[in-house]
Amino acid sequence: MKRLKCIISYDGSLFAGYQIQPNGRTVQEELEKALARMHKGSQVKVTASGRTDAGVHAEGQVIHFDTPLAIPGDRWPTALNSQLPKDILVRKAEIVPESFHARFSAAGKEYRYKIYQDPFRNPFKRMYSCHCPYELDLQAVEEAAGFLIGTHDFTSFCSAKTDVQDKVRTITKLEVIHCGKEIELRVAGSGFLYNMVRIIAGTLIEAGKGKVAPNDIHTILAGRDRALAGKTAPAEGLYLWEVFYGN
Amino acid sequence: MKRLKCIISYDGSLFAGYQIQPNGRTVQEELEKALARMHKGSQVKVTASGRTDAGVHAEGQVIHFDTPLAIPGDRWPTALNSQLPKDILVRKAEIVPESFHARFSAAGKEYRYKIYQDPFRNPFKRMYSCHCPYELDLQAVEEAAGFLIGTHDFTSFCSAKTDVQDKVRTITKLEVIHCGKEIELRVAGSGFLYNMVRIIAGTLIEAGKGKVAPNDIHTILAGRDRALAGKTAPAEGLYLWEVFYGN
Repeated sequence: MKRLKCIISYDGSLFAGYQIQPNGRTVQEELEKALARMHKGSQVKVTASGRTDAGVHAEGQVIHFDTPLAIPGDRWPTALNSQLPKDILVRKAEIVPESFHARFSAAGKEYRYKIYQDPFRNPFKRMYSCHCPYELDLQAVEEAAGFLIGTHDFTSFCSAKTDVQDKVRTITKLEVIHCGKEIELRVAGSGFLYNMVRIIAGTLIEAGKGKVAPNDIHTILAGRDRALAGKTAPAEGLYLWEVFYGN
Repeated sequence: MKRLKCIISYDGSLFAGYQIQPNGRTVQEELEKALARMHKGSQVKVTASGRTDAGVHAEGQVIHFDTPLAIPGDRWPTALNSQLPKDILVRKAEIVPESFHARFSAAGKEYRYKIYQDPFRNPFKRMYSCHCPYELDLQAVEEAAGFLIGTHDFTSFCSAKTDVQDKVRTITKLEVIHCGKEIELRVAGSGFLYNMVRIIAGTLIEAGKGKVAPNDIHTILAGRDRALAGKTAPAEGLYLWEVFYGN
């Protein structure tokens, strides 16, 4: 048996999320169906770095699985892509030691959140970014973003629907990139709570609208209460961009 | 009654085309449903500059309709957009003389055809461009494109499924724009035959692959035979970009 690590991209628009569930098409199910076809019907379990919700996209999701097939690592993308639907792509594959685990070996992740700023919504971007009809105050967004960098208790930025006890996480980067009508939030950290990036995005959008003052971020963090932060920004703007592993 | 002219955009991915048909969701049907809601259930017939096929997009399709409502021209986009699905957008509206006709008054059109050139297909572009895994010889594409500009009998570049007798048309512009992995063909002319832009795109792609020599364009045009030109390029790369009207 060999362990394969793959970097995959997917358009989350037509998926009910990454993880297999009884109702709805999922990324995991499509991957396992493609692998079963390559393994003469035997089931191959796929493990990802983490789940993504319905409508959330991935540029660089990482998965691993074990296989008895003697296909060289660099031939796997072409082999798997020929079996996969067009909204999932295997970008890269390599044989890794058995100790590698897509989830437990991950040292950090980068997410990106795309905002499209224009009085009119754009039919071509409706599934790929969050529409904001008002012009955001980017200086306020950047200032508020700066206060989120570092190690904090992110209880206020975590969906109430979670069992996780320890809500202290470290954000190592939170950049605000502005290009034409598009604003991109680039958030990297050691780990993320459920809905954390979408709640950060929603709160930064409110900072950009003047509904939240940048300095309020301190109070929101200190309050440890989900009700203090902004709305959860919609799924379609979110991309799992990269998963980092140590050597 | 007033006549309204509107410029609309739509993402053609989830439509069975522009024109109403018994099976499948169409752009015209969604427009007429939205207008019926605004007119207390009365039917309002919408006329477009022309049809687009299933999967074909529009950046600047033009429509007209007549209405008794006393809404100022510049308020129509917001009013209609609130009734339309998110894959159709009214960009601009104005009251025009009754002599204006979206189809018969049109003096010309510009189409764009998008090609995505990369060994891997891109999940995010699968519905918005034609994937080309090989690197095209752009000099050959440009040379071949140059031979199509002007007034020619385009029988070889027209679907055999057409009743139109006169197949002489004038192409006023055929530019090849290259930016990163994307190639865009910009084709403007006084009028287009059925599938003409997609057959032009398919033939230029074959020129880029070296399967058609640029000079062959003369022979293909002169032969007046659909079988001589390249394949019809897929719908997802095509955009109706702009419709031109005289003063």
